[in-house]
Amino acid sequence: MFESAELGQSITKEAFKKESVKLREQLLRAQGRFAEGGFAAVLLVGGVEGAGRTEFTNLLLEWMDPRGIQVHALADPTDEERERPRFWRFWRQLPPKGKLAVFLGSWYTEPIIGRAFKRLDADAFEVELDRIADFESMLAREGVRLIKLWFHLSKKAQRERFEGLEGDKDTSWRVTKQDWAFHRRYGRFRKVSEQALLKTSTAEAPWEIIEATDPRWRDLAAMRRIVQALEAAAGEAARAKPAPKPDRPKPRASNLLRRLELSLESGKDYEDKLERWQGRLARLTRRLRDERRSMILAFEGPDAAGKGGTIRRLTQAMDARNYRVISTAAPTEEERKHPYLWRFWRDLPRLGRITIYDRSWYGRVLVERLEGFCAPEDWKRAFAEINAFEEQLADFGTVIVKFWLSISPEEQLRRFRERERIAYKKFKIGAEDWRNREKAPAYEAAAAEMIERTSTPNAPWVLVEAEDKRYARIKVLETVCDALERAL
Amino acid sequence: MFESAELGQSITKEAFKKESVKLREQLLRAQGRFAEGGFAAVLLVGGVEGAGRTEFTNLLLEWMDPRGIQVHALADPTDEERERPRFWRFWRQLPPKGKLAVFLGSWYTEPIIGRAFKRLDADAFEVELDRIADFESMLAREGVRLIKLWFHLSKKAQRERFEGLEGDKDTSWRVTKQDWAFHRRYGRFRKVSEQALLKTSTAEAPWEIIEATDPRWRDLAAMRRIVQALEAAAGEAARAKPAPKPDRPKPRASNLLRRLELSLESGKDYEDKLERWQGRLARLTRRLRDERRSMILAFEGPDAAGKGGTIRRLTQAMDARNYRVISTAAPTEEERKHPYLWRFWRDLPRLGRITIYDRSWYGRVLVERLEGFCAPEDWKRAFAEINAFEEQLADFGTVIVKFWLSISPEEQLRRFRERERIAYKKFKIGAEDWRNREKAPAYEAAAAEMIERTSTPNAPWVLVEAEDKRYARIKVLETVCDALERAL
Repeated sequence: MFESAELGQSITKEAFKKESVKLREQLLRAQGRFAEGGFAAVLLVGGVEGAGRTEFTNLLLEWMDPRGIQVHALADPTDEERERPRFWRFWRQLPPKGKLAVFLGSWYTEPIIGRAFKRLDADAFEVELDRIADFESMLAREGVRLIKLWFHLSKKAQRERFEGLEGDKDTSWRVTKQDWAFHRRYGRFRKVSEQALLKTSTAEAPWEIIEATDPRWRDLAAMRRIVQALEAAAGEAARAKPAPKPDRPKPRASNLLRRLELSLESGKDYEDKLERWQGRLARLTRRLRDERRSMILAFEGPDAAGKGGTIRRLTQAMDARNYRVISTAAPTEEERKHPYLWRFWRDLPRLGRITIYDRSWYGRVLVERLEGFCAPEDWKRAFAEINAFEEQLADFGTVIVKFWLSISPEEQLRRFRERERIAYKKFKIGAEDWRNREKAPAYEAAAAEMIERTSTPNAPWVLVEAEDKRYARIKVLETVCDALERAL
Repeated sequence: MFESAELGQSITKEAFKKESVKLREQLLRAQGRFAEGGFAAVLLVGGVEGAGRTEFTNLLLEWMDPRGIQVHALADPTDEERERPRFWRFWRQLPPKGKLAVFLGSWYTEPIIGRAFKRLDADAFEVELDRIADFESMLAREGVRLIKLWFHLSKKAQRERFEGLEGDKDTSWRVTKQDWAFHRRYGRFRKVSEQALLKTSTAEAPWEIIEATDPRWRDLAAMRRIVQALEAAAGEAARAKPAPKPDRPKPRASNLLRRLELSLESGKDYEDKLERWQGRLARLTRRLRDERRSMILAFEGPDAAGKGGTIRRLTQAMDARNYRVISTAAPTEEERKHPYLWRFWRDLPRLGRITIYDRSWYGRVLVERLEGFCAPEDWKRAFAEINAFEEQLADFGTVIVKFWLSISPEEQLRRFRERERIAYKKFKIGAEDWRNREKAPAYEAAAAEMIERTSTPNAPWVLVEAEDKRYARIKVLETVCDALERAL
C-alpha cells in the first residue's frame, strides 16, 4: 500500500510559497468553523523515522491558531501512567469539544514497535489492532474526529535523510543510534505498519498515506487533508443529528431479576459474620496493596436499594489511604465535552488501590436510556464499549466486580417513607426519587438487558437480594473476598 | 503548647457509644449544609507517628457520606510531581466547592521531617513556614475552609503504642523501622512541630491539638471540631459577602507605560534579525530540554497588541514536543469551583518544557478588576499572591519572563479596522473588542499598577514597544534568549 507514496512527488519552492498563502487562510477558517461545531479532533502524525513528523507539527502550530491546539509528544510513560491500563494516558489527553489534539506517538507506537522487534506475536498484535479499531470507532461516535496521517519514506529516502542530517554539524544530533536500528529493520517495519494501517483504515477514521521525501510536498498534502477534515467536521455539525429520545423497555415476566429470591435473610449471627468477613477483607486488601494489584467495584440498583450502606460496610474494613468512593451523578460541563467514558477512566485506581463507583458507567444504559439523555444509537453501542473497557481493566490485572442490588417496589416504598421520617436520612430523598419510582418496571427491564449483555468472566455481575439489608451486605463482603482470593 | 494534650484524657466505651450516635447525626447534617454553601474544605490530619491518623480517617469516612469526601494519602511524590514545584501536588488535589478533601500527609510533612533530621536549616524552615502561612491564607480567602487537626502523644504514650502494636501478630507489621527512628528523635520532632504549629496557627486556619492517647477521646474531639468547622462554613456562606464591583482607576500622567518610546522601529534588516534570533532560541530551548529546566512566558497587553503574532515567532523556533501555548479565557465551571490560581498551576511545564500563557493569572488585576468579576478585596490581595506563586516557580529553577506589549490607541484602531477588512483575520475581532476600547485609559492605569507591584528580579516584567510589530518581535526574542543564557 505504500507504493503510491514512492513516486518521487515534489513541489518547487515558488509553487509551495504560492500555495501555502492560500492554505494558511483555509486552515484558519476551517479551524474557526470547526471550533464552533461541537466536535473534538485528534490528529495522529505517524510514519517512518526521519519523515519529519515533528518538523511538520511545528509548521502546523505556526499556521494555525495555537490556542485551539494541544500537542502531546508521548515518550516513555510516567509512573502514574504505567500504573494504569495502557490506554489511560491517551484517555487523559483527549481534547474537549472545539479543540484539536496532535499526538506525536500514539496508541499505534507500542504495538508496531513491539511487533517489529518480535516482542509481540502475531495473535497479540491482532488483538491490539482490534482494540485500536474499537477505540477509534467509539471516539468517532462520541464526537471526536480522527485525522490519521502516515508520513512515508522509501528505505533509500530514509537512508539519504539520515545521512543528510548527519552530514551537517547543526543537525547531526538529530540522528540517533535507534534511528539506524530502525533503518536496518526497515522491511520489517514496513510490513508491520502496512498490516496495522490496513486493519485500522475505516470509513470513520481512514489513514492518509503521504509521501514525505520532499518536505514541501509532504507539508502541503498533510495541510490539505487537515483542512478537509476540519471542514467536514464543521459541515457535519451543521447537519441534524439523531435526537435523543427516552426508551422505556417493557419488562419480560421471565427476566432474571424477577427470579431472585428476595426473601433471603441474614439470620441472627449478622454481627459475627460482619466482623469475620470484614476482618478477612482487611487482610486481603492489604495484600492487594502489597502485591500492587488494583480493584474496581461498581454498584448499581434502584434508589434506596442500600448501595451506600453496603459500600460503607466494605470501606470500614479498608484503609482510607487505599480506596476512593466515586459517586456518579450528572456529568459536569467539562465531562460533557469529552467522550462518555472519559470521566470513569480518569478515576481508575493506581496499583495497590481500590476505586468504588456508587453508580457507574452503566448509567448510559440505565438512566440515560430511560430518560432520553442520549440518542438510541448511543446506548445501544454502549454495551460493546463497556465490555471493551472492562476487558482492558481485566487484562491489566485489575480485579473487577459489579453488584446489582435488588429490592421489591414495596420495600422501596417503605424505605422512602422511613427516609422522610428520620432526620439524618432526610437528605437522601427528594421529589425525583418519587418520580423515578413510576418508571421502575422499565428500569428493571433495562437492568435485566444490561446484566445479560455485560456479564463477562472477568467482570461478572453479581445479583444481590437486598430486601434484607444485612443479607445483602454479607453477600457483597463475601463476594469481594472470594474475588480477591482468586486473584491474589 | 502540647502540655494540654498530655492530661490523660479518656472516655468510657459506653459514653463513647452514646455520644457517637449524636455526633454522627450532627456530622451528616453539617456535611449536607456545607455541601450547599459554596465553600470547599481541606482537613489536615497531622500529628506524631502512632497517634492514629489513618484509623481516625477510616472512622470519618464511615460516619460521613463518603461521596462528598476525597482522601489523599500523600506518600513519595510521583515523577510527574517531582518535575514541578513542591506545592503542585497539593494544588492538583484541592477539592472543588462543596467537597471535603482529607490530606494524610500535607505541605507540613516535608518541612517538619526535613528540619527534624536537620536537612533544613533554621532559616530555610522559616521560609517554608512563611510560604505555608501565605498559601493557607490564600486558600481561606478563596473559599477553601481549612480544618487542621494535630494528634498528639507523649513520648511515653508513643512508645507504649508501638510496643502494643508490635506485641500483637495481627498488627505488628504496622510498626516500621522508621517509626522507631522517629521515636528516638521524639524531642526534636516535638520542638520542630511546636514551632510549625505556632507559626501557622492563624485566625483563619488555627491548629487544634488533640490528645490521642485514648483513641475514643481522640475520635470524639476530632469529630466535634469537624462538625463545628463545617457548620461555621455553612453559616458563613449564608451571610452576605462583599459584592464584586468594577474598579476603574484613573491614569496618572507620569505612569511608566506613557513613557515608552512607541516610535521605535525594527529597521530594514528585520528578516535577518528574525532568523538570527530564532536560530539562537532554537539552540537555547534545546539546551533547556537537555538540562531539564523549565520556562514560563506570559504575555499581556491590550487587544491587537500583537501577542499572538509574537508568540508565533517564538514557537517557530521551538520544537512542538516541548512547548504548550495556553490561551486564557473566561474560566470554565470546573475552574470556578477552585481557587483562582488553580488553573494556572495545572498547566505548569514539566522539566525541559515550556508553557507560554497568552494572557495569564494577571487577568485578576486587569479584566477582573475592571469589569467587577471579583470583589475589590480579591484583586487587591492578588498582587502578593501572584508574587508568591512566581517566587515558587523561580525557586524551583523555572525561567520566567513576563511581557507587556504596548500600543497607542490610534494604532489599535488601525489594527481593528484591518482585522475587519481581511478575511482570515476576521475571526479575531468582535463587538467586545470595540467595547473594551472605551475602557482603555482605566486598563492602562491598572496595568501600570500591576507592573509596579509584580516586577521582581526573578520574574521581571519586560515592557515592549509594540507599535511596530517587528520591533516588538525582535525585542521579545532577544529578551527570551538573554534570559535563557543567564539561566543555563
